[in-house]
Amino acid sequence: MSKNEKMYDSPDSASSVGWIKAKVARLADEKNPFRLQSGRELFPVDVEYECYGKLSRKRDNVVLIGHALSGDAHAAGWDKNADASGRLWRKRKPGWWDSVIGPGKALDTNKYFIICSNYLGSCYGTTGPSSVNPATGQEYGISFPVVTVSDWTRLQKLLLDQLGIERIYAVIGGSLGGQQALEWALAYPDMVDNCVVLAAAARLSTQGVAFNAVGRYSIMNDPNFAAGDYYHASARPHNGLAAARMLAHITYLSDEGMIDKFGRRLQDKEKPDFGFGVEFAVESYLDYQGRSFVERFDANSYLYITRAMDYYDAAEQWGEGDLVKACGRTRARMLLVSFSSDWLYSPADTRKLALAFCRCNRPVSLVEVPSSFGHDAFLVEAETVGRLLKSFLAAGK
Amino acid sequence: MSKNEKMYDSPDSASSVGWIKAKVARLADEKNPFRLQSGRELFPVDVEYECYGKLSRKRDNVVLIGHALSGDAHAAGWDKNADASGRLWRKRKPGWWDSVIGPGKALDTNKYFIICSNYLGSCYGTTGPSSVNPATGQEYGISFPVVTVSDWTRLQKLLLDQLGIERIYAVIGGSLGGQQALEWALAYPDMVDNCVVLAAAARLSTQGVAFNAVGRYSIMNDPNFAAGDYYHASARPHNGLAAARMLAHITYLSDEGMIDKFGRRLQDKEKPDFGFGVEFAVESYLDYQGRSFVERFDANSYLYITRAMDYYDAAEQWGEGDLVKACGRTRARMLLVSFSSDWLYSPADTRKLALAFCRCNRPVSLVEVPSSFGHDAFLVEAETVGRLLKSFLAAGK
Repeated sequence: MSKNEKMYDSPDSASSVGWIKAKVARLADEKNPFRLQSGRELFPVDVEYECYGKLSRKRDNVVLIGHALSGDAHAAGWDKNADASGRLWRKRKPGWWDSVIGPGKALDTNKYFIICSNYLGSCYGTTGPSSVNPATGQEYGISFPVVTVSDWTRLQKLLLDQLGIERIYAVIGGSLGGQQALEWALAYPDMVDNCVVLAAAARLSTQGVAFNAVGRYSIMNDPNFAAGDYYHASARPHNGLAAARMLAHITYLSDEGMIDKFGRRLQDKEKPDFGFGVEFAVESYLDYQGRSFVERFDANSYLYITRAMDYYDAAEQWGEGDLVKACGRTRARMLLVSFSSDWLYSPADTRKLALAFCRCNRPVSLVEVPSSFGHDAFLVEAETVGRLLKSFLAAGK
Repeated sequence: MSKNEKMYDSPDSASSVGWIKAKVARLADEKNPFRLQSGRELFPVDVEYECYGKLSRKRDNVVLIGHALSGDAHAAGWDKNADASGRLWRKRKPGWWDSVIGPGKALDTNKYFIICSNYLGSCYGTTGPSSVNPATGQEYGISFPVVTVSDWTRLQKLLLDQLGIERIYAVIGGSLGGQQALEWALAYPDMVDNCVVLAAAARLSTQGVAFNAVGRYSIMNDPNFAAGDYYHASARPHNGLAAARMLAHITYLSDEGMIDKFGRRLQDKEKPDFGFGVEFAVESYLDYQGRSFVERFDANSYLYITRAMDYYDAAEQWGEGDLVKACGRTRARMLLVSFSSDWLYSPADTRKLALAFCRCNRPVSLVEVPSSFGHDAFLVEAETVGRLLKSFLAAGK
């Protein structure tokens, strides 16, 4: 997805955090179950996380990173356990935000102690629908409780407690990770000094909720979905999940970006075949995105994480529907970054969030980055985002 | 879909064309097969069409209407054959453009002789994948040849030949029907006096091609699709077709329209259920659209008609890629109408088409109608569209 896909730091490069081994923390058990926003209780809860850099003596250099829908804890460096964990695609490239995290990079690991954890409900080491329910000895499937952004934040708080961390220098995230960052500033105002929300807003748009609904419909109506109980079946709901991903990819690009990248070019042919196979280059791209995604993501997790994305609404969560009231709770310096051609979390929606911070006299900076990369820009425009992060954090309180 | 859904003219109202019986014309047979743009030949070809008003003695009052993706020949009045044809949903409301067509209406049947025909490949009386292939005695399914907008135009020309019509006072269409109208002005410049293109452009955007691809993927990967051979099976690919329709409906509305109509309102509940059923009002809407569509549309036809939509490119068709060169062929007065919040056929794309007409000194008017109804606006904003049609045609040559 990155413009710089060919320019990876090798594990032994001076600007790479090198080989990384993810850790797992048990944050809830039978005696101390985790109480979810829905009211349900869950145990055990294991959370996979990675750390880069060193925690300072004063424990005042913590940067917490939130990942996007299909992301994971592996934000930087090279995965030492790729073989053992079965996440073989990780052997091919470094963590998803390696362009920004490392020695001397925007999120400088010589300076900051960076933590990224995988969300509850995901499929990358944290407890989720593909985990075994101790009560039944079977995978949860869709008997797993619905999770929310608030649940994730409270769980990350438990992780920090376990690590003996009481203060967050900065919480940063893009897309769904941006909602996560915002929720941190709202839920634990006295813990967060600086907060960066990239390509996100106070809530997902109606259109975004609609796209997620179609994606879930495709998954849940794939006959291999089998009411979520497919872990031991000979086939998984790959077609439904691929359709959901193809659709989502359209929302990650912009119309102008798609024209630049594909236009109406035919794929490997001069004249149309007059058929229903891959004719246009954009079809080939979507086809590839769908097919590769099913190799690395669990359909049930896709349901849970999109639902969390739907539900999140900062105004409802903290201001009884009043966004200004909600924002008034925060104490962090805020940086909001939107991207001109992003239509999943549009600049207009980010602007509304910035305005709410202004109205309650909270310190907020808003940057609208011109880009044709749509929602993906928060990852693709790594250089610009890196510069913004660096200067914002350097001036931090 | 119409704002005026409750305000139908009854069949005996003075402004209704009343009860209508569709006709079917055989336009190709074994001796005279229809040669398609793809090079394949097809016979027999039957086309269902409806007429409203009276053909003048001079045969100079013909208005040809193009329908949209899921439309049909039944543009106005009430279907006399709804029971016999099995198209029972037509009993509930009049033709899809009844708000505009009728005695005294914008397309005044006291004045004009209006013809609307169903496209080749559709499922409403014209030959398509659900028709029986005489060579096999079985329904074509996806052995039906791929069809194009150009094929439709040449077929409509055969229909007019059969009706003894040599001149078209106006050809008018919205969305895919707009591409149809444009193709008429290009393919038969000396036959068309006036041409109105609503909510359309010289070609579909890359994003539009991408959405169509995902819709077809959903249909073709529904196990009940059975390679298109499902007509005698116990189940049809309803889930795939519903997913395609739900997705398409998002592209027919605008983001702002969705906020106005649904916002983030929950459906019949005060608090979320924390589940994967219908939570938000917008999910309920999509669910209904999907479920009702499968009762009235054939999944194979959806493949063919979206493919025709993908392929159409006026510049490629008539100008070797040069849109100005293509437009230079036309002789008709052109009216192009776009809708401010339409993002399937955006005002910017319609503007490009208008500019091409300007550059070759062809008479063109461009109107951008402010509307929050997105692509649907071409039907919903019936009053505005009606006024535009009326004045444009009154001043016609």
